[in-house]
Amino acid sequence: MNTTSVKAFGTEAKDKDLQLMQIERREVTPTDIEIDILYCGVCHSDLHTARNDWGGTKYPSVPGHEIIGRITKVGSAVTKFKVGDLAGVGCLVDSCRECESCKQNLEQYCLNGSIGTYNGKDVFLGGHTFGGYSEKIVVDEAFGLHIPENLDLKAVAPLLCAGITTWSPLKHWEVKEGSKVAVVGLGGLGHMAIKLAKGLGANVTLFSRSPDKIQDALDLGADAVVISTYENEMKAVKGKFDLIIDTVPYDHDINPYISTLTINGTLVLVGYIGKMEDALFTPPMIGGRRSVAGSVIGGIKETQEMLDFCGEKNILPEIEMINMQNINEAYERMLKSDVRYRFVIDMQSLKG
Amino acid sequence: MNTTSVKAFGTEAKDKDLQLMQIERREVTPTDIEIDILYCGVCHSDLHTARNDWGGTKYPSVPGHEIIGRITKVGSAVTKFKVGDLAGVGCLVDSCRECESCKQNLEQYCLNGSIGTYNGKDVFLGGHTFGGYSEKIVVDEAFGLHIPENLDLKAVAPLLCAGITTWSPLKHWEVKEGSKVAVVGLGGLGHMAIKLAKGLGANVTLFSRSPDKIQDALDLGADAVVISTYENEMKAVKGKFDLIIDTVPYDHDINPYISTLTINGTLVLVGYIGKMEDALFTPPMIGGRRSVAGSVIGGIKETQEMLDFCGEKNILPEIEMINMQNINEAYERMLKSDVRYRFVIDMQSLKG
Ligand SMILES: [Zn+2]
Ligand SMILES: [Zn+2]
Ligand SMILES: [Zn+2]
Ligand SMILES: [Zn+2]
Repeated sequence: MNTTSVKAFGTEAKDKDLQLMQIERREVTPTDIEIDILYCGVCHSDLHTARNDWGGTKYPSVPGHEIIGRITKVGSAVTKFKVGDLAGVGCLVDSCRECESCKQNLEQYCLNGSIGTYNGKDVFLGGHTFGGYSEKIVVDEAFGLHIPENLDLKAVAPLLCAGITTWSPLKHWEVKEGSKVAVVGLGGLGHMAIKLAKGLGANVTLFSRSPDKIQDALDLGADAVVISTYENEMKAVKGKFDLIIDTVPYDHDINPYISTLTINGTLVLVGYIGKMEDALFTPPMIGGRRSVAGSVIGGIKETQEMLDFCGEKNILPEIEMINMQNINEAYERMLKSDVRYRFVIDMQSLKG
Repeated sequence: MNTTSVKAFGTEAKDKDLQLMQIERREVTPTDIEIDILYCGVCHSDLHTARNDWGGTKYPSVPGHEIIGRITKVGSAVTKFKVGDLAGVGCLVDSCRECESCKQNLEQYCLNGSIGTYNGKDVFLGGHTFGGYSEKIVVDEAFGLHIPENLDLKAVAPLLCAGITTWSPLKHWEVKEGSKVAVVGLGGLGHMAIKLAKGLGANVTLFSRSPDKIQDALDLGADAVVISTYENEMKAVKGKFDLIIDTVPYDHDINPYISTLTINGTLVLVGYIGKMEDALFTPPMIGGRRSVAGSVIGGIKETQEMLDFCGEKNILPEIEMINMQNINEAYERMLKSDVRYRFVIDMQSLKG
């Protein structure tokens, strides 16, 4: 298969910085589109993968799954896109397309294993997939997304992971006008959860441990902030929320939040992958048919719906632009939560 | 308020046996029915309450909330029942009837606190309510249940707690023809879960730790039994079940079961009230939008629907009849799981 060498930023080992490298991109197949990458958001998963925090990272690793660009080539059978169109690529570049999940547009839960935009199996070139920290990407049009033309392009990128990760549970658990939603944690995911839930007409509360987040949350549109370490504030919201989106990326005790769910309410974990050491206390669950669930990103159809919704409502993440060369410093700042609320890489910096 | 003294079996303290005592029953109010109790099932909650295992038991304690009898008096405004009718009383004798839960026929989740058939607040006579280990009970007709005439009366009693406790989640999570349901634990609740899920047309698997339960489960209608300590059997059912009803009444590790849920599947806890010490492992939840939920008994409307369904399908628990005088021995046998699957007291023994 013919390939083109393109510039990318990646790492050769878990304890090495990311640096300039060359990777190969395949020639477009009949159903592929080739995208010239303009912007790429920086997700916590990028960092965890680069550093092999979850195990299983294949090197060299080129992260990036919040990709916005313009189409430079289309395959002969492509129908959804044409050269010059804007296009986005999120966390997935393929799935089996045949299983029960895929048939229901739930590619993120593909029973045969969906293919990640990076660190997935590259079925065309062998080896593994490389993400958006690169000049170009080639992807099947079925996994490409249309980008509303009215939106500020730079800021669209984080919608493709942080946006859909919070949108999917909001839609699955049927948040609508008047729903009472709480968000735990105010980072990349949390700030999108607030904006999207507000966009859907919900009344939104942020749970935070630090009072210095109050003004930020209100500025982002939250109706209220509850400081989770203040017992009286927690008591005041007992039994209140239809849905809680828990975006906290480290182990924490979810029991205090479960008690703030209404009857039939659900707390959905989207941030923490691992063991929750605090013993789950069942009486509030049994006594109110409350649930604890998990959710990951979203399907392609759902992602397109979210992008269209954000276009309509002009909902965008708060971002800080960086150059590709500053990615290692950006990772360090992310670890200290020193970003409001998402870094986006201006990919011109890689090309220049 | 006029009262009648009736014979009952109860206990004066947590470390005392149950014994014969006299309790007062109120004269029927306009909306009350008086029931001459024929049979009363013996629930694990009876034992836990008598022995104050959960704290909060008020003494003297007269347990029993699986009550079947015949109506001997009706108040002037009663419309649902007449003297001579069969009637049942389950776990609840009242609720606020006004809150969001009550308005949705979810009296079991009454936001102002429903009133338990025993150990609840007696708003008529003061003190606390006394359950079905007694000659008669007086209850508002709104909390009385019609009993299908075709069923073997003795065996109907356990439907009022063990039956509805498993029926309610089966209905809430929409089990139907072809659903794949698993049941954890084969006791009073578990054996009803198998029968009711089969009645609804589901394919039913029992999870058990002991191979000596296999034949019993198949006899009760289960399609398969998975021995949860056999790793290869657990692997074979990975991702299989739409709903798991977990009836185990003590702390146990639910993580192995979560992995056997299908995408969007739910494990619902109905048996264990307390802390689950094994750390909850989030990847199978996040990676498949799987949920862990709790559920308690059911509402009055739902209980009636279950009774009617059991009448239609002739579904009844397996029972062992005892005399009232043998209740203490029965409790000891329950603690050793030495009952298949529910004790029912023949209340003639109390009267004789
Ligand atoms: Zn991401
Ligand atoms: Zn698939
Ligand atoms: Zn019971
Ligand atoms: Zn109520």
